[in-house]
Amino acid sequence: MAKEKKVEQITDMEVDFAQWFTDVCTKAELVDYSGVKGLFILRPYGYAIWENIQTVLDGMFKRDGHQNVSMPMLIPESLLQKEKDHVEGFAPECAWVTVGGSEELPERLCIRPTSETLFCDHWSHIVHSWRDLPMKYNQWCSVLRWEKTTRPFLRGREFLWQEGHTLHATEEEAREETLHQLEVYADLCENFLAMPVIRGNKTDKEKFAGAVNTYTIECMMHDKKALQSGTSHYFGDGFCRAFNIQFADKDNTRQYPHQTSWGLSTRIIGGLIMTHGDNNGLVLPPMIAPTQVVIIPVSMHKEGVLDKANEMLERLKTAGIRAMLDDSEQSPGWKFAEYEMKGFPLRIEIGPRDMEKNQFVAVRRDNGEKVICSIDELENETKALLDTVQSGLYEKAKKNLTDNCYPATTLDEAKDIVSKGGFIKMMWCGDLECEMKMKEDVGVSSRCIPFEQEHIGDVCPVCGKPAKQMVVWAVAY
Amino acid sequence: MAKEKKVEQITDMEVDFAQWFTDVCTKAELVDYSGVKGLFILRPYGYAIWENIQTVLDGMFKRDGHQNVSMPMLIPESLLQKEKDHVEGFAPECAWVTVGGSEELPERLCIRPTSETLFCDHWSHIVHSWRDLPMKYNQWCSVLRWEKTTRPFLRGREFLWQEGHTLHATEEEAREETLHQLEVYADLCENFLAMPVIRGNKTDKEKFAGAVNTYTIECMMHDKKALQSGTSHYFGDGFCRAFNIQFADKDNTRQYPHQTSWGLSTRIIGGLIMTHGDNNGLVLPPMIAPTQVVIIPVSMHKEGVLDKANEMLERLKTAGIRAMLDDSEQSPGWKFAEYEMKGFPLRIEIGPRDMEKNQFVAVRRDNGEKVICSIDELENETKALLDTVQSGLYEKAKKNLTDNCYPATTLDEAKDIVSKGGFIKMMWCGDLECEMKMKEDVGVSSRCIPFEQEHIGDVCPVCGKPAKQMVVWAVAY
Repeated sequence: MAKEKKVEQITDMEVDFAQWFTDVCTKAELVDYSGVKGLFILRPYGYAIWENIQTVLDGMFKRDGHQNVSMPMLIPESLLQKEKDHVEGFAPECAWVTVGGSEELPERLCIRPTSETLFCDHWSHIVHSWRDLPMKYNQWCSVLRWEKTTRPFLRGREFLWQEGHTLHATEEEAREETLHQLEVYADLCENFLAMPVIRGNKTDKEKFAGAVNTYTIECMMHDKKALQSGTSHYFGDGFCRAFNIQFADKDNTRQYPHQTSWGLSTRIIGGLIMTHGDNNGLVLPPMIAPTQVVIIPVSMHKEGVLDKANEMLERLKTAGIRAMLDDSEQSPGWKFAEYEMKGFPLRIEIGPRDMEKNQFVAVRRDNGEKVICSIDELENETKALLDTVQSGLYEKAKKNLTDNCYPATTLDEAKDIVSKGGFIKMMWCGDLECEMKMKEDVGVSSRCIPFEQEHIGDVCPVCGKPAKQMVVWAVAY
Repeated sequence: MAKEKKVEQITDMEVDFAQWFTDVCTKAELVDYSGVKGLFILRPYGYAIWENIQTVLDGMFKRDGHQNVSMPMLIPESLLQKEKDHVEGFAPECAWVTVGGSEELPERLCIRPTSETLFCDHWSHIVHSWRDLPMKYNQWCSVLRWEKTTRPFLRGREFLWQEGHTLHATEEEAREETLHQLEVYADLCENFLAMPVIRGNKTDKEKFAGAVNTYTIECMMHDKKALQSGTSHYFGDGFCRAFNIQFADKDNTRQYPHQTSWGLSTRIIGGLIMTHGDNNGLVLPPMIAPTQVVIIPVSMHKEGVLDKANEMLERLKTAGIRAMLDDSEQSPGWKFAEYEMKGFPLRIEIGPRDMEKNQFVAVRRDNGEKVICSIDELENETKALLDTVQSGLYEKAKKNLTDNCYPATTLDEAKDIVSKGGFIKMMWCGDLECEMKMKEDVGVSSRCIPFEQEHIGDVCPVCGKPAKQMVVWAVAY
């Protein structure tokens, strides 16, 4: 017989958080490295998490009247150049196709880093009248950005995402869409991924290339760094002018539509890992976990144990719970470690002694708590425990965020916060120079101008001029 | 007020079938052309058909234990070259990335034309023991092949598809998988797309680059040409040897696994169009139509009409039927033409006079038949009519295939068949030379060696030598 599989060890997260993250990515079998730097393989378990995220978001997009489309993956260089700010932002990180078959191409083609130019080119063919608006499109695809340093999920040269692109007759409607889609992302994060968010506006320096406004949701990771988790952009009519997209309104005058786009990527899986994970591996919120419950039979060759385990599996499935049974020949101890590594929210143990008492043991992945339950109450107890794990994870992450957001009124205070870890709430005059100085002197970037403003002081601590707004600053991924 | 939209005209399919096809693709708003030749935009309606196909296939794949993954889109040239037959087949039509950011790459990267090499490279990292087998993977993505002539759906330089890739411990299991997946494609075609298929083995000349066997399903289009609609390949252990993928079996000896792959692409939508379409546009089988029923109110401003139409819409939706109501200000005549162009399987008309009689009018898209139904029986009548349209479309396509498959025992007979249109059933000696001669002299390629063999004669009509098998020959897309 071949030997039992080894239980994999991972680095202690308090010793080396970056290595811990990489260990979880590979040992929980989420990703593998490919032969090209920065292009990662999403293995079945990693992709199943993405599929669940897709299902939630796609349902929300369609509920709100968006339609999926598929745009080409290649953009001619001349098309990318049509909107000036946009090309300046993206051209430096494009990958270029220069040969097709055996021939040098007359014009080089970039692999899409994002698809605003493609949507606008298409819309210039099909938008004519107010009847054609709004255009509410989305696509699921991968994009390429030729980054220098790369990490699984957090910074890939290729990554999977969805990109929504819409056109509206009025600015008001477009701005409403932009904010609504940010709220959709916040809903996903808070209510499915158990990741509390700070909603806000990006500063001009941090906004998307070509956008008038970029809105963001920012999350705090276990190591108190920030992760930008989803962004939504209002473009005004800049691209529409550049691409000559016009519509005849009801009184037949020609107008430029107002545009939005919004995107969320597999980066969010990196966020999930770094928000909830621990030294035993991944921890997944039940709402998004591909498998919510694993049943592990103890002394499984004793009479009736496997039958009981299978019966429980069927009952859980019938109740709409994503459950599996591991009846392989690996030891229970190996199985415990394996499914802890994979972050299954709940483990159910059932053995001969439990059966005698008509009970089972449920073990929560989030805190290791063991709960003894009656088999009669299997479905109810399991559902209640999954709800408890879901809200427990959210509360824990919320506490991490709340406890580690500090106001600062001087640069020294800001530096102190950075050295112990956390987000800085600080007033800002609105000048780019002060924003640059925060980066240089304190080592933080502006994460957002939160919608929920607080009054920390009257002046910008960097320059002493009157402050306009409170900004959240942090070291970010 | 802006003017009413025009009803678009399309070319007569008997006059110019190719132009008719292009007209349907654009006028039914399935696709748009992009700025790069051969890269097409799938518009919402075209993509919705693909989403329905995905849902059916993905469900079958998962039912059978396959897992979705995501592989990189770029393949290093050296990786593509590892399997000799494979690189010979695909290198001439690769698109090459040579620049990343502002730097020339040390090795050029091709955009995947298919992903066997990527899967094998990954498997060489993760397959070690018999416990790791079978590997049953699938991915949904787009691939690039730098074709010279391109057409929407039928031949794109980029197209969407799924590619399944599996590894098995034994040849028997791998061969079983190959044939099973062909049957999955046949199931999709026959039972959802109403496209009858011929199942068979490809000749050596026509098989996939690197495969031991390629199996295919071939469909007959309205113009009696053939469309290869899905293929499934058995690879033996050729790639596994080239990529050094080995596993320790139960008695600890090292073995090479046996490999399969299988793919079906958006090409099938081209097949749908050319199988069922007519001079009024697209015709979609109800099982795959994004909208199965459109309700069109007549004299809709008369009291109660819109209320009744809305009530009917809700009843249909509740019954699980994909229905919509067009209550826009366009004329009923415009609406009739619009939804005929889009191929909605059933139209329901409801007006004041129908309401008086507690009835509605249902019009079948496949043959234009009008049926008067009681509103009380709305759900039952609609379901029954949709079933009739589904089976009617299949029977019509089946008749087209059966009526236009002819046996031939001489080359002259074969040429006659080609001139009137149809598939040729002819014996074959198995020699490549005779296959080439069929192409040169008769203008047909071998479509497949059907699993259901017939005895047409004893000799190969090309060379006169003893025949081995019956082959189906045809002009193909």
